[in-house]
Amino acid sequence: MKVSELGEFGLIDLLAEMAGGEKDEQLLIGIGDDAAAWQGDESIQLATVDSFIQDVHFPSGIAPWKELGWKALAANLSDIAAMGGLPRYALVSLALPDNTEVDDVTALYTGMLELGREYGVAIIGGDISRAPIVAITITILGSSQKKQILTRSAAKPGELVAVTGELGAAAAGLEMLKLKLQFDPQATACFDRAFLHPYPRIAEGQLLAEQGVKTAIDISDGLIADLSQICKASQVGARIEVDRVPIEPMAKVQFGEKSIELALSGGEDYELLFAAGTEVIDKVKRAAPCPITVIGEIVAGKGVTVVDRQGNPSNVVKRGWEHFITR
Amino acid sequence: MKVSELGEFGLIDLLAEMAGGEKDEQLLIGIGDDAAAWQGDESIQLATVDSFIQDVHFPSGIAPWKELGWKALAANLSDIAAMGGLPRYALVSLALPDNTEVDDVTALYTGMLELGREYGVAIIGGDISRAPIVAITITILGSSQKKQILTRSAAKPGELVAVTGELGAAAAGLEMLKLKLQFDPQATACFDRAFLHPYPRIAEGQLLAEQGVKTAIDISDGLIADLSQICKASQVGARIEVDRVPIEPMAKVQFGEKSIELALSGGEDYELLFAAGTEVIDKVKRAAPCPITVIGEIVAGKGVTVVDRQGNPSNVVKRGWEHFITR
Repeated sequence: MKVSELGEFGLIDLLAEMAGGEKDEQLLIGIGDDAAAWQGDESIQLATVDSFIQDVHFPSGIAPWKELGWKALAANLSDIAAMGGLPRYALVSLALPDNTEVDDVTALYTGMLELGREYGVAIIGGDISRAPIVAITITILGSSQKKQILTRSAAKPGELVAVTGELGAAAAGLEMLKLKLQFDPQATACFDRAFLHPYPRIAEGQLLAEQGVKTAIDISDGLIADLSQICKASQVGARIEVDRVPIEPMAKVQFGEKSIELALSGGEDYELLFAAGTEVIDKVKRAAPCPITVIGEIVAGKGVTVVDRQGNPSNVVKRGWEHFITR
Repeated sequence: MKVSELGEFGLIDLLAEMAGGEKDEQLLIGIGDDAAAWQGDESIQLATVDSFIQDVHFPSGIAPWKELGWKALAANLSDIAAMGGLPRYALVSLALPDNTEVDDVTALYTGMLELGREYGVAIIGGDISRAPIVAITITILGSSQKKQILTRSAAKPGELVAVTGELGAAAAGLEMLKLKLQFDPQATACFDRAFLHPYPRIAEGQLLAEQGVKTAIDISDGLIADLSQICKASQVGARIEVDRVPIEPMAKVQFGEKSIELALSGGEDYELLFAAGTEVIDKVKRAAPCPITVIGEIVAGKGVTVVDRQGNPSNVVKRGWEHFITR
C-alpha cells in the first residue's frame, strides 16, 4: 500500500502503535498529541517538531523569507501553546538548494529570531543540508512549570467547546496571495498579518491550564479537522453550531458566505480550540486577554457534526488539511 | 551570494552569530557543537537535530529502509555520545513522496526502534509531510547526569589526539555498495555492518567525560574534517601522524593504499575523536571497552597537518564532507 492510500493520520496511527511498545515511566504523552511530554526533574518537559516544505506547506514565492521564518516558528510554538506550556529553545534544521541566496537564509533567520525574542525562545542548534527543495524543520523544547498540561484526549460529553480569538483570516490571506486578490489597505494588512505573522497563543494556553481546562489543540489544519483530532483522541463526538463560530469580521466582509468555509476548514489561524465545563469556561472568559467563544459541545459518539441555527446538519463542512490524501 | 559559494560551515557561522545575540544564563552550549546543552533542574540537558536527505546523505536504492532507519538514528545518537551524554528520547520528522510504500516506512521505523531499544531511546513524537523526496529529520534529547560534558572548544596545545575503534570501514562499505564491488563474505559483512549498522559510542562518550576528557567530536564528516572543527572551535592546530591512524584491517586488506584516504576523509565511522593530556588518555585506555589509539597532538596555530613517519607533510589528505561546496 502507498502512503497516499493510507493518509497522514493513518500512517501516524500505525507508527505510534509500533513506537508505543515499550513502557516508559516518565513519559506522559508520546506520539499523537501536539507535543510530547515527560516528567523532568522538577517540571514537565515538552518537545515538538514540525517540517515546512516548499510547495507543500508553502507555495514558493508567496511568502517572503523573513515571514516564512516567523510563520514556521509560530506554528511550532503554537503546539507548545496547545499543551499549556512555555517554549524555551528551538533547534532549526534547514534543507536548501545550492543556489539559495545567503541573504534569503539570513532573512529567514531574522524572522525566526524576531518572533523568538517576543516569546523568550532562543535558537540553540540545528543543521544545514543541501537539498533539491527548501525544507525547514523546527524542534521546540519547553516546559510546564505548573505541572498541568493540556492534551487532546481528556474531553468528556457535556463539556462545552470553545475557541480563542477569531477564525478565517489566515485562510483569507492565503487566498489573497495565491489568487492575487486586491483588497483595500486595511483588509490587505489584516489578511497579511493573519497568514504571514501569526502570534501563537502561549499566554492563553498557560491560562487555560491554570483555570482547569484539560483538553486543547491548536487550529493548524482547520477547526473541523482539529476538533476531529480531539474527538478521536478522547473517544467522543462534538457538535458545532456554525452560526456561533467567530469569523474574523474582515474575512466576513470581503469573502461573504465563503468566509464560513475559511473559518471551518482553512486552518493556520493558530487559535486554541478547547473543551471544558461551563464553570471553567466562565473563569477562562473572565481571565483571558482575548475573545473566548463557545461554539458547541462535546457529545457521546464520534466525529464532528456541524449544525445550523435550527439544529439541522450544515452543508458547509469540508475536511481540513491532511497530507497524502488528494482532494 | 549563493549558499554554494559560502559553504555549509560559513553559513553555520553566520547564523550562529545572528542567533547568539542574546545572553541566556542557563545555556551552556549553543549553535556550533555536536549538540546544544543547557542547565536543567538537576542535570545538564542535551539536544541535537540532523537531517538525512535522499540523494544527498544517502543515494536512493543503496541502503534498505530498515538500515536507513538504523543509520539515521545512530548518526544522531553519535552526536550525544560526542557530548558524553545519555540519549533518552527521539522525535522523528519524515518527509515522504506520495508513492512511498507503507511497508518501507514501517521498515524504516523498525530499524530506528531496534537501535533505540539497544540504547534505551524511545521515539516519542514527530511529524509526517508529503514531499518530492525522502527526508528524515531526527531530534535527540538527552542529558549528562555527571554534570560533565565534552565540547569541541576545550583542546589545548600539548594534549594528545586519540580516537576510539578503527576507521575506514564505513567509507569502504559506501564504495562497495555504490560501485557494486565484490568481496569475500567476511569483508562484505564487515563493510555492510560499518556503513549500514554503525553503533554510536554512547558508553565510551560517558567514560571519556568521567575520566576527565574535555574535548571530543564524533567522526561523521571524516577524521581530518572533524579534527578541523575541534581546531577551529578551540583556536588551536593539530598534527596527525598518518601511520598511527588505526585503519580497519579488512579495509586495509581490500583497499590497500586507498584505505588511508577512506580512514582520513571517508567519514560516517561514528567513532569518537578526542584530545586530552597523557595521564587522562592512559586512564581512558585502561577503562575503555574498545581500542584507544593516540594519533597525534594538539599544537599552537591553526588547521590540521598530516605527517608521515619521517615528519614530512603527507600527501594523502583530502577534505571531509561539507554541504554546498562542490568538489
